[in-house]
Amino acid sequence: MQELEERIRMDGRIYPGNILKVDSFLNHQVDITLLDHIGAELYRLYQDAGVTKILTIEASGIAIATAAAYHFQVPFVFAKKSRSANIGTDVYTSKVHSYTYGLDYPITLSRKYLNSSDTVLIVDDFLANGKAMDGMLDLCRQAGARVAGIGICIEKGFQPGGEELRSRGYRVTSLAVIDQMGEDGITFRSQPEQH
Amino acid sequence: MQELEERIRMDGRIYPGNILKVDSFLNHQVDITLLDHIGAELYRLYQDAGVTKILTIEASGIAIATAAAYHFQVPFVFAKKSRSANIGTDVYTSKVHSYTYGLDYPITLSRKYLNSSDTVLIVDDFLANGKAMDGMLDLCRQAGARVAGIGICIEKGFQPGGEELRSRGYRVTSLAVIDQMGEDGITFRSQPEQH
Repeated sequence: MQELEERIRMDGRIYPGNILKVDSFLNHQVDITLLDHIGAELYRLYQDAGVTKILTIEASGIAIATAAAYHFQVPFVFAKKSRSANIGTDVYTSKVHSYTYGLDYPITLSRKYLNSSDTVLIVDDFLANGKAMDGMLDLCRQAGARVAGIGICIEKGFQPGGEELRSRGYRVTSLAVIDQMGEDGITFRSQPEQH
Repeated sequence: MQELEERIRMDGRIYPGNILKVDSFLNHQVDITLLDHIGAELYRLYQDAGVTKILTIEASGIAIATAAAYHFQVPFVFAKKSRSANIGTDVYTSKVHSYTYGLDYPITLSRKYLNSSDTVLIVDDFLANGKAMDGMLDLCRQAGARVAGIGICIEKGFQPGGEELRSRGYRVTSLAVIDQMGEDGITFRSQPEQH
């Protein structure tokens, strides 16, 4: 998605340890126009996939899911990162490893909001090692839901998550894939089918 | 907002301890049509207030902020509930007391995304004791930003947050105010100016 790539080049900031900060427009402050275009692009790519529900994980995924849901006109649901005192006990649970914090954390999703009649588009802002995505796929497996695909804003193509998911047969659609980044700037993967 | 009140009556569930769960349509699974109408109503009420930015706090507030931003066509920003390793050090910080978890937690907001040129509409899904709102108002005070008002989906009118904020002079607009809830159902406060 050219608009997203251009925005990353213009406003993304690269830090040591392969950290890319896009918090001026995507996951802290959010540019609603860009966000809407992301939702529109995910719809363009998955409009024929029979999607009945958008799934994401809190927190920054919620903005992406909202924008996607606007275009698909289906409900979205977000997995929670810790067992809330108010969520009840009737939940699917999984575990996600966070490299940022060096620990595993539980994620939960109420059984009421995902089941075997659902066809799910999973969305998130970033895909790197894919651990959060593994957790969400596990929730879908427990629910018996069909996974239409995985829609990502920014994939770090030099980390293994995307390739692992594709090799397992999932349709992974990353609107921008970074093959390399560093002092010389950012190299995006060419994805002609999306242009 | 009649549509929201009707939805709460139909799908909200009441539990001991004045807990109202609306997780089938507002803060776990989200009905995108209702959410869009919430954004439209906040815009109707604040369209002349000169709003330059929507502010909320993760996680469930992000959906409300996205819908509001769609209608205002301004950026939104969400305060984070813990110091992320990736957020940097140039942040406003405050503390919020959680009655649900019985502890204080820090909230942060990058200084880059809120400043004295901003006029802010603060939004959230719930207002009860108002502790999260106090934290967000403290962030606005540190930024020197003007607060146009506070837009809430559901206010628990029998808890002190809303009245305290109004007595401090803030414009608080709660789309549904619950004066009483229990086994007999829910009593909403009449708010003729919003109909």
